[in-house]
Amino acid sequence: MHNFSEYVELINENLFKYLPKSEGLQKTLADAMKYTLLAGGKRIRPVLTLAFCEACGGDLNNALPFACAIEMIHSYSLIHDDLPCMDNDDLRRGIPSNHVKFGEATALLAGDALLTRAFEIILCNETTNLVGAKITIDAASCLARNIGFYGMIGGQVADLENSEKNVNCSKLNEIHNLKTGALIVAASKIGCIAANASKVQIEAAAEYAESIGLAFQIMDDVLDGDSKDKKIEKRKLSYASILETRKSKEIVKKLTQEAIKSLNVFGDNRNFFENLAWQLSKRDK
Amino acid sequence: MHNFSEYVELINENLFKYLPKSEGLQKTLADAMKYTLLAGGKRIRPVLTLAFCEACGGDLNNALPFACAIEMIHSYSLIHDDLPCMDNDDLRRGIPSNHVKFGEATALLAGDALLTRAFEIILCNETTNLVGAKITIDAASCLARNIGFYGMIGGQVADLENSEKNVNCSKLNEIHNLKTGALIVAASKIGCIAANASKVQIEAAAEYAESIGLAFQIMDDVLDGDSKDKKIEKRKLSYASILETRKSKEIVKKLTQEAIKSLNVFGDNRNFFENLAWQLSKRDK
Repeated sequence: MHNFSEYVELINENLFKYLPKSEGLQKTLADAMKYTLLAGGKRIRPVLTLAFCEACGGDLNNALPFACAIEMIHSYSLIHDDLPCMDNDDLRRGIPSNHVKFGEATALLAGDALLTRAFEIILCNETTNLVGAKITIDAASCLARNIGFYGMIGGQVADLENSEKNVNCSKLNEIHNLKTGALIVAASKIGCIAANASKVQIEAAAEYAESIGLAFQIMDDVLDGDSKDKKIEKRKLSYASILETRKSKEIVKKLTQEAIKSLNVFGDNRNFFENLAWQLSKRDK
Repeated sequence: MHNFSEYVELINENLFKYLPKSEGLQKTLADAMKYTLLAGGKRIRPVLTLAFCEACGGDLNNALPFACAIEMIHSYSLIHDDLPCMDNDDLRRGIPSNHVKFGEATALLAGDALLTRAFEIILCNETTNLVGAKITIDAASCLARNIGFYGMIGGQVADLENSEKNVNCSKLNEIHNLKTGALIVAASKIGCIAANASKVQIEAAAEYAESIGLAFQIMDDVLDGDSKDKKIEKRKLSYASILETRKSKEIVKKLTQEAIKSLNVFGDNRNFFENLAWQLSKRDK
């Protein structure tokens, strides 16, 4: 297994490779896609893809196109989330958000283009020749399912609809499992799929991912609440608004412990994921 | 070969089947997706998919998931096109457009969900078991390529960027081949792919589709110009603004003749496509 920053380096190199060239009629579109995709970010999702591939004995090269596709999906979701009709956020990772820099129309299309490019990368000849037809289809199908109606986008609409309502913890969990969890689960499962892993391994990775995904979202809400920035005022649907910080942190700890319990099937390779889960649970930004 | 309205009936039945159920947390999202997808429309693209599949000796059932996916892509593009930051159209097919009915945020997400659902349908077990892995990957890959950076979305950004400029006919053709043509080409090629057609057939279908796609767009501009509605005032990048109607209609005729020349490889089945090309070239709405 490599370490986290080695994975990040590999991902950043390959994201660049998988972006379309910034030239011709589509130059502005390429620039807008690149702007958000290469503007930093923790790269947690694609790191999970690479790490689970290695943990299942797979070749990292087989997981790289999938890891890059997943980060493109994450970027697209951020660009659309920031638009004025959604969260209306002017800043993303400390710089002007995509629509502030390129205008709303181009930002909308850059999001659409990143979403589509993710599938293009997974389904292109280079990838299918590398990993074979079965892995290609299983990965693409898992991704489509988890980011669509029954996953990320479904969660976003549920989030919008319930943001003015009083929801209980169980419903909030359900919404966050879709909105945030589904892509983290897909990233983890697809890493296993790239390694031709067993069903047991794929399911274990999914359980781990679901637990850390929810813990991650609760920590996000706690940190947002602590920083008392404008976001928490706008986004009503937050753990911070229904739970006190101490209680939220307890739940994060419990979820992290649960996540770690799912890891036995990965033998010594479990250490990487165990460390990652604890680090995410104790982060302060 | 079936006739046009028989194909449309099949498509409408199956679109309904492939839409997610309108229930649970995602009910509003399902309603918004359905609203635009089932609100009429000529269904030209999915009809091309079914017709080319039959013309190449394929089983219609194999082409149906692809045809439905392509119509979902068309619907998503209309929803995003109508948004205030794009064309800002309040009406679509005579009824309030998606964002007027459901709000901008839900419309944005309904577009994203339809785009994602298209890939989900193509890549699901039901489809891959029906058509096999090779056809699944070839169809999904062709779709991703033609609706992304190097296709539809690339064309939309180029359209935006050039709408205030004086462009010549050749550049306008290039933009429209991306913006409108690429999806029509994908629809036609994927019909052939579903029938396991030869490369020669796939290329012939693509040539036909590119010609009728461009003719279709020029006729759109002529009809928009004739009706002098608000759209032509907003969208500057139009054949109507650089060519007089008589000249535009001549080009449409020439493109239609060219389209028909590509059809020899389909033997007697060419009649369907020949009639369709002439009908599209002479339409008045």
